[in-house]
Parts: sequence; structure tokens; C-alpha cells
Amino acid sequence: MKTTPFSDLTALMRTGDIEAARVRIDREHPADIGSMINDLDPKEGWAVLELLTLDRQAETFGYLDHDVQVGLATVAPRAKLAAIVVQMNADERADLYNELADDQREALMPALVQAEREDIRKLAAYEEGTAGAIMTSDYATLTPDLTATEALTKLRREAPDKETIYRAYVVDDERKLIGSVRLQDIITAPARATVVDVMQTNTLAVNVDDDQEDVARKIGRYDVLALPVLDAEGRIVGIVTHDDALDVLEEETTDDFHRVGTVTNLSGRVGEATIWMLYRARIVWLVLLVFGNIFSGAGIAYFEDTITAYVSLVFFLPLLIDSGGNAGSQSATLMVRALATGDVRLSDWGSMIGRELMVALGLGLTMAFAVSFIGVYRGGPEIAMVVASSMILIVVVGSIIGMSLPFVLSRFNLDPATASAPLVTSIADASGVLIYFTIATTFLPFPG
Amino acid sequence: MKTTPFSDLTALMRTGDIEAARVRIDREHPADIGSMINDLDPKEGWAVLELLTLDRQAETFGYLDHDVQVGLATVAPRAKLAAIVVQMNADERADLYNELADDQREALMPALVQAEREDIRKLAAYEEGTAGAIMTSDYATLTPDLTATEALTKLRREAPDKETIYRAYVVDDERKLIGSVRLQDIITAPARATVVDVMQTNTLAVNVDDDQEDVARKIGRYDVLALPVLDAEGRIVGIVTHDDALDVLEEETTDDFHRVGTVTNLSGRVGEATIWMLYRARIVWLVLLVFGNIFSGAGIAYFEDTITAYVSLVFFLPLLIDSGGNAGSQSATLMVRALATGDVRLSDWGSMIGRELMVALGLGLTMAFAVSFIGVYRGGPEIAMVVASSMILIVVVGSIIGMSLPFVLSRFNLDPATASAPLVTSIADASGVLIYFTIATTFLPFPG
Repeated sequence: MKTTPFSDLTALMRTGDIEAARVRIDREHPADIGSMINDLDPKEGWAVLELLTLDRQAETFGYLDHDVQVGLATVAPRAKLAAIVVQMNADERADLYNELADDQREALMPALVQAEREDIRKLAAYEEGTAGAIMTSDYATLTPDLTATEALTKLRREAPDKETIYRAYVVDDERKLIGSVRLQDIITAPARATVVDVMQTNTLAVNVDDDQEDVARKIGRYDVLALPVLDAEGRIVGIVTHDDALDVLEEETTDDFHRVGTVTNLSGRVGEATIWMLYRARIVWLVLLVFGNIFSGAGIAYFEDTITAYVSLVFFLPLLIDSGGNAGSQSATLMVRALATGDVRLSDWGSMIGRELMVALGLGLTMAFAVSFIGVYRGGPEIAMVVASSMILIVVVGSIIGMSLPFVLSRFNLDPATASAPLVTSIADASGVLIYFTIATTFLPFPG
Repeated sequence: MKTTPFSDLTALMRTGDIEAARVRIDREHPADIGSMINDLDPKEGWAVLELLTLDRQAETFGYLDHDVQVGLATVAPRAKLAAIVVQMNADERADLYNELADDQREALMPALVQAEREDIRKLAAYEEGTAGAIMTSDYATLTPDLTATEALTKLRREAPDKETIYRAYVVDDERKLIGSVRLQDIITAPARATVVDVMQTNTLAVNVDDDQEDVARKIGRYDVLALPVLDAEGRIVGIVTHDDALDVLEEETTDDFHRVGTVTNLSGRVGEATIWMLYRARIVWLVLLVFGNIFSGAGIAYFEDTITAYVSLVFFLPLLIDSGGNAGSQSATLMVRALATGDVRLSDWGSMIGRELMVALGLGLTMAFAVSFIGVYRGGPEIAMVVASSMILIVVVGSIIGMSLPFVLSRFNLDPATASAPLVTSIADASGVLIYFTIATTFLPFPG
């Protein structure tokens, strides 16, 4: 990916050659200018933003981190800020509004016209994580009786304002969705044809309360540019576009990644997170897992006599319990991702347990074979037998636990990603200790 | 997400009421019909496909799994299959070609016209994982001297064939890219304006050899519908569209997930994987980690005298080494994802190590506090002191290892996702054993 060093730009600005700086920045994409401003303090950032035309200011503003937007809002002259806000996409504008402090909202709102104020309040009111919260009100509608020519004129007039006019939504008198039409079908239609002749009636749609991840996956599954969002009465209230879907999927994937790694509630960019934020995100599970490990400790205490008689058993303890945990983590990882992408469904558990058992048996046998050599070398043939047979059982049990935990959590409406590797490891550890020392106590001759 | 039970459709087909089945299936989206056919055997699948119009057959065919496509290709009459292949998107057609056996290709090719044969051979030749392999040749080009009216006529004529005409690419006599123009700008332009008047000259583009993940992230970053793909001479050879970008990101994310969970090279859907595929994907790392664990075992052997003198130290062994591994996994997870999304760069390691140290110290102190109670209860104040101070050091060392490993792997051009939790765990385990027993041997009074 291209890295954009803006050092020449900052140099130009420091010398006060604003015109040259303006020419320089005109070559850059708003996404890159946004990245640059994210790294500046608000005053410098505002100076860079002022180099741009209003259109590009609004577009760049949409690419900024929320805290940077708020920072700029505090240093920018009110009238100029209002002008930018008016130009922004409706959904980004509503997100900004949600981030602002009460007094900043109050200061900004009078500068906006009535229609925009209402639009912002409406969009900002939807609950986070729903289709409503990520949708935009910049979409084009048509009525069924318009001719192709009239429809094209209407779209042409509205084009600069609308986020996408490539598909227009056909609504009845009550704004209920009755179909949709692609711009290319309007263009290629005979001039006298009406919208109802060229529209598609089985338009996919989502509800305003639908989960944002489901909406994003639907856009991906059906390869559409946007999906219309309907209220409870079937009226269109917004659209979710493909670029927002991609952002949502990236964000949800990061959440899943973190949850699998027992990092909780760390929103925003890791590079920018404070020590306190990282500490909070990590400590909960670490301490929980400490207490989870008490079971392993208790198991060991219970077998104290066996351990005292055969201290060499301890050599294999980390090896065996880690192997069970590792096999379990693998199974859990596969299931967590498969459940997230919809590749595997909750009802598939029964049909997959048999396959998992066979795979785990194969893995266990191979690993038992590998470990038996170390066993003979370090503890003699008897210890090797105990270690090898423990290995098979520990890997099978660990795999079954790892595979099942995501299903169990899903069943109780918890996020399967929480069946994270370390949680599986802790449970597998305790089972591993029990299996290992039970086999050892049963099969090794007791001295004295 | 909507589940689509097609049981009524299969019932209709079994009674031989083809007309009713046709009406029934007309309501469904090709993506859903594709999912249904994926679960059928080739003969049944072909019978369902035959219910559709040619257009919808081609679209549905594009949604099928590759092995299902190949299965259908073997049962379908050659002429009908060729008709479908002609209608498919160019990129999906090339993918299918790559999956077919030699004799199937030979059988199919004569049925296609010359232009399509060449197009397939060209697209199928690009290396997997590059922009060339995921691009399509269904894009529209314009020359700079066309008027807006002429341009619109050309796009209107080509529309049914092109994957997206919302942005057309402006090329010179040698097909070198000189700009691009949005359909909406052509529509809203005065009739006499030429393409050069309304085109944008700083069009983003990628090279045919670029990594597919980089291309997909670029589409996401710049919120574009498609990116043109250029050859070494700057000539346009294809476009990558937003829907393919989304598929690539999902696929790469699944790969990362699996790699973090030490599952290697498992392509395709987990739900469909065979026992042998799963075994192969998992065994390599499991056995490697067994041998990695020998270091922990050797560490324990080295401290045999200490263990024999204080068997109760063994109780805390799983707890301590797991905590180091868990803290390390957390750090690794955060870094792997941050490196993948570009949130953190290779050069940031130095500036992040200080922060990580502070976070780890905080985590270690909290966990030492928690574990000291268990220590007093199970082993007395001396053991508690040893366990608590070991905990602090183990968590700090584990975190630093977990944080650094992804950077080190990146540095050597290996995938940072390979710095998987279990690998970090194994290294952290060995260090944990050394730290714990060194502290114990140093501070505990030796009997005899």
C-alpha cells in the first residue's frame, strides 16, 4: 500500500506558502489527507483542512477519527464548521453529532437549516449496532408512474446530494417500498416507458432494528451496492451502502479477534489506546483464568502421593496439558469462525461431533507416537506408556471441549468468540491433570 | 438472516410439476438458489438449474462452490453448459476454467467463440492471490474526445455486458489509463461537453501483480466501487469490484483466524472439510509444539531437587505458566490484528514496547495480589511470596514475548498471524518454568 509522507506539505505551510500547499494537497485523496490530519493537533489539522474546497473538506472530515473530529469542532469557527457539516454524508453527520458534547451541539445546531437538524436528530436516535445507526438518508426515490425520461431528470437533479443514485427506490404514496430500479435500466429504457415497467419488485430490504453485522453480511452475500432500510410499517427510512458494510465487517472481525484472545471492549485503534484502556481490556479474563486454574492445582494436590513417588511425571505435565489445550484451541478457532461466517449453524453440532472424534483420535495417536520416544528416554517404558495413553485421551477430550464450547455459548445467546483459546485451555488443563494422574495412579506400581 | 427452506420446491419437483416449481423458484435470489444447489447431488442440482432462465442460470452458477460447479459440468449437456459459461461474469468464468479437468476444458472450449476463449485463457493465467486473479474484464472504456451524448450511447449499448458501468475508464490509443468518469457525471453534463471535460484525472489504480488483500483494503479505504488494474505499461487490463474485495477480505480474515489458532492451509468451508483435510491442517503445529515443550520439561528436570524438597510448588505450576501464556496471547492477538489492518506498522515496535511494559506490570501486580491468597492458603507465606513475585515477572516476560513475536515474524517476511497463541504459550511456558524455579531455588531455605 502507498505510504504518503506529507513532510513536504508541512514544510510548505511552515514557510507560509499557502498557495503552493494548496496545489500540493490537491493531488491527494481525502482518505489520505484524513490519515494525515489524524496525526496532527487540532490547530494544525484545521489549517490543513482550510486548504481544501468545501466539498473536499466535508469528504475529508468523514474520514477522520471521531476524537479528531471533536477536536477540530472546538477550534474551528462556528460558521465554517456548520458549512462543512451541511456538506457531509447524512450518516457521518449523525455519527459526529453523537460524539459532540451538549454545548457543542447547541452551538452548532442553529447554523443548520431546519431539515438538516431534523435529519441529524432522526439518524442519531437509532441504537448503536443496528441498521438504523449505520444507514444514511442520502438515497433517491421515484414514484411508479414517472416515465423513464422524467425519472432520469429527477435523478439528475438530485445526483449531487445523494450518496448513490445507481439504484433508486420506488415508493407508493405512503413511502412504502414497492420496488427498485437501476440507473442503467432507466437509461436503456424507451423514453415513454414508466418506472413500473423497468423496476424490480422483489427488492431485498432490512429492518431498522436488524443487527449491523447481519446487514453487512447480507450486502456481501447478495453482492449489492446498498440495501434499503424499512421501518415497522414497511416505509423506507434509509439505505446502508457497501462501503459501510465493509467497515462494519472489519470492525466486527476485530472484535471477534480480540474476544478470542480474551481482550474485551477495546474499541478504536490499538496503536492509540492508553495504558489504562489496555489494562482494563485485559485484566478481567486474566484474573478469571487464575481462579479457573485453581481446579488444576486442586487436581495436582489430590495426587500428591503419586507425584512424590514419581517426580519424573512432573516433566511431562506441561507437555500433556498444553497439547490438550492446543488441540482444543484449534477446534474452537475453527468453530468460532465458521459460526461467524454462517458456514456452520447451531443445528450442525450433532453431525460434526463424530467427525471431530475421528480427527482428534488421529491427532492423539500421532502425538502419542511422538511423545513416547521422549517418554522412554526420560522416564523408562512404564512412564512412556502412561504418557502416551494419557496423550490420546487428553487430545480427544480437549478437542471435543474446544469444538463444543462455541456451540454451547451460542445456545445461551452468548458470543461464541468468548470460547476463546485460553478459556478452552483452562478447562482442558484441569481435565488433563485428572486424566494423566488417574492413569498414572492406576497403572504404575506403588512403592511401599 | 433469513433461512430459506426449499423443501416445498423439492416436493414440487418430485411430483413432476415443473411449471409450479418454476414459479416457486422465481421468487428466490440466485445466492440462495446457489446455497441450495450446493447441498444437492449434481443430477438434482442440474434439474433445479434447468428451471431458471439463462441469465439467472449464469448468475446462480457464479454463486456455487467450485467443486459443485465441476460436478454440474460433468452431468450437464455440453451445449447448455457452454451457453451458461458465455453468460457468466468474466472473472467467475476464468475461476471455473481453472477448476476444470483438462478433458472438460477441451470439451467446453470449442463451444465458445474465439473472443471468449482468449478472454478466459488470459484471465486464468494470472497467479492466485494477485489482483490479476480476481479482476474481471467486464468494464467499460471511453475515449477522451467523445461527447457526453456519444459516451452515454456507448455505455447504454454495452450495459448488459459490463459488470459495472457506473464508472467508465478513459483510455488513449494504446489503452493506457488517462482518467475515469462517473456515469452520473455523464448524465448531468451538457450534451456537447466531451469526456475529457468531465473526467477525473487522478484515478486510483492497482497493478496486476499487487497482492489481492492490499487491493481489497484499498477499495475499502477509498470507498470506491471498483479499482482499475494496469499492466506494467500502464494499460488497463481489468477491474476489481467491491463485491470481490469483500470476498477477499472475508477469506483472508478466515486464514488469519485459522493461522492464529495454528490451523494451516484449510481452504474452503469447514463444514464440508473431510477428516483427512482437518487432520493435515492441524497435526503439523501440534507436533511442533510437543517438541517445543521439551524445553519446559528440561527446565523442570534441571530443578528436580527443588521440586522434591517442595512438592507443593507443583500445585502452582499450571497456574503460573498459563498466566504467562494467556497474557502473551492477548498481546499477540492485539498486534496480529493491528498489523493486518494497518493500524500499527513495523516501525512502531520501539514506541509500543514501553507502553506494553507498563500495562504488563499493572496486570502482573493485580494477578500477584490475587494469587497470593491462594499461595498462603496452600503453601504458607514463603511459598506465597515466591509465587507472587514469579507471577509478576512471568506476566511481564510473557507479554513482551507475545507483543514482539508478530513484529519479528513480519520483519522476516513471515505472516505475523503465525505468532499464534499456542506458539507464544510454548515459549512463555519455558520461560515461566525457569523464572518460577529459579526464584524458588534462590529464596526458599534448603532442607538438608
